[in-house]
Amino acid sequence: MLKLNEEQQINDIQGILALRPDVENIIDEVWQNGFETIFYLGIGGTYASALQIEAYVRGKSELPIYVQHAAEYYTTGNKRLTKDSLVILSSVTGTTEEVVKAVDEINKIGATLIGFIDQADSLLAKKCDYVITYPNPGTEQIKFFMTADRLMYKNGEFVDYEEYYSDLDQYLPYGLVEAEKQADDFALTFAEKHRHDTMHYFIAAGNQWGACYSYAMCYWEEQSWLRSKSIHAAEFLHGTLEIVDETTAVTVFLGEDEQRPLAERVKKLLPRICGNYTFIDTRDCVVPGISQKYRGRVLSFLLMHAVTQRIDAHVEKLNCHPLDIRRYYRQFDY
Amino acid sequence: MLKLNEEQQINDIQGILALRPDVENIIDEVWQNGFETIFYLGIGGTYASALQIEAYVRGKSELPIYVQHAAEYYTTGNKRLTKDSLVILSSVTGTTEEVVKAVDEINKIGATLIGFIDQADSLLAKKCDYVITYPNPGTEQIKFFMTADRLMYKNGEFVDYEEYYSDLDQYLPYGLVEAEKQADDFALTFAEKHRHDTMHYFIAAGNQWGACYSYAMCYWEEQSWLRSKSIHAAEFLHGTLEIVDETTAVTVFLGEDEQRPLAERVKKLLPRICGNYTFIDTRDCVVPGISQKYRGRVLSFLLMHAVTQRIDAHVEKLNCHPLDIRRYYRQFDY
Repeated sequence: MLKLNEEQQINDIQGILALRPDVENIIDEVWQNGFETIFYLGIGGTYASALQIEAYVRGKSELPIYVQHAAEYYTTGNKRLTKDSLVILSSVTGTTEEVVKAVDEINKIGATLIGFIDQADSLLAKKCDYVITYPNPGTEQIKFFMTADRLMYKNGEFVDYEEYYSDLDQYLPYGLVEAEKQADDFALTFAEKHRHDTMHYFIAAGNQWGACYSYAMCYWEEQSWLRSKSIHAAEFLHGTLEIVDETTAVTVFLGEDEQRPLAERVKKLLPRICGNYTFIDTRDCVVPGISQKYRGRVLSFLLMHAVTQRIDAHVEKLNCHPLDIRRYYRQFDY
Repeated sequence: MLKLNEEQQINDIQGILALRPDVENIIDEVWQNGFETIFYLGIGGTYASALQIEAYVRGKSELPIYVQHAAEYYTTGNKRLTKDSLVILSSVTGTTEEVVKAVDEINKIGATLIGFIDQADSLLAKKCDYVITYPNPGTEQIKFFMTADRLMYKNGEFVDYEEYYSDLDQYLPYGLVEAEKQADDFALTFAEKHRHDTMHYFIAAGNQWGACYSYAMCYWEEQSWLRSKSIHAAEFLHGTLEIVDETTAVTVFLGEDEQRPLAERVKKLLPRICGNYTFIDTRDCVVPGISQKYRGRVLSFLLMHAVTQRIDAHVEKLNCHPLDIRRYYRQFDY
């Protein structure tokens, strides 16, 4: 199948899940030491992943877990981020300019930094108190969720943590590959229809929202050079809906967490005002082995990623546009 | 001048500022009673104003002040919002469906609700513990900022609070009208150039970001039915920039708070990659009387609003599109 190396992908996901003992050791140690607040630090794609964590924990945990944008930090600061804070971040290159600047400021404050840094000898790796290295870009979501889950477990808010991860360890790596295969025909049809869109709207809620924000920006805009706008399902109904007409290309991501009803509300409205909509519902993705009750946690948006990854592969080929070239990013100083 | 009733507008701003003793009485009372966390609750435009508050206080205050999206609350909940929380909200109609639902849930928890509700006998007014009524829509920003300023004052984080508000009381109402007059020629030229844009990108940072998000969504999309996308200046450089070419219409809002350098960075880049950009810099707006050191707080984004209000007035006339009609919102149930 186009651009799908099954064995490699299964190994990658297994490898990330195998980081869990390291994550647990670190979290258990910082838990022992105590902390005041927890911040997930990011910019661009990692900021989006941090947004997903905030949506995920908000209704489940009493822990003071928040998002901190890297560039906002080194300009505005954050008086709630103190020497007793825990800061969790992720970086592929370990050199992202804004994150380095934020981390330098955070180190002056003296907070504890946990970094998932894919380059072991990079600038950022040297600046963190704890570093976990895994040479596979684009997987910070699972890493972030593993830390949040362990924190909630320590706080008595995730009693079936072991059972959950046992499900993931056993069924996730193969399940995601199977999901890509299931989605491929749909993805090709979608890519053929939308690869020349002048604008495409992506809508989502819950822990799909950060992923949707990232998909529009880091995939369509940055990689495919296609114009797109992401909008939270609840916000779509407070403004953006007015520019929708029969021809507007709109895709709704339907996930499986508590905010699903917000996306369903948009799903119900769209056929009445638009003739060019698509619904991608992760409920349609069969993944044997993983309990129904766990699907809304991490599986649902990883399944959405499995679907969109197929779309991207077909758009890349059909549009003759390699996803790894950039017009401007890191091409010159600005 | 087109759609500018000077006397009315001066009276409106004076009227809002005159609410301050009421705001102070309420904040001082809840301060006395104590609280654990503070949430600014909103959706759409009021969510945007809440985002502005978060950006405003983050570097200034140790108070646990956060944004809570109304629809996310009644779906996902928030375990950090307890009976000891303070929730501040604003509503023009007092009937916004999602806010009513969120407030009903919050009342079950028992948190203290402060509402700026423009309709005194509305549903929401009845559900809040404290209500301030002022019959002028679209001014929740000043109201929100007054509460945040009083909270910071009580927390010893705004020592020249009185001097600041004395400046605003004396100079803001006239200053904003003068700013509209100063901006009118520019606004007409801008409206003539961009009123048929197929897409317009708005970029901002700091406390201009929430305003920018709202401007793209609640003004261009909802009122003018023009397609637009807002993007935070720091995020623009992590994806969206790749779709910019010579013809892309991009406007950067430059404010005067600590995040100004993030917008300036985009200002520096754009002329190298785009031939259709506009910079709106509130530093160019002269407002006699208000100290330089206070401009970044509330004045700067109100000045931006003064400029964009002129643009909207001209777009409305030139496009023969009344800003108060809606295709879908509140036209039928969904």
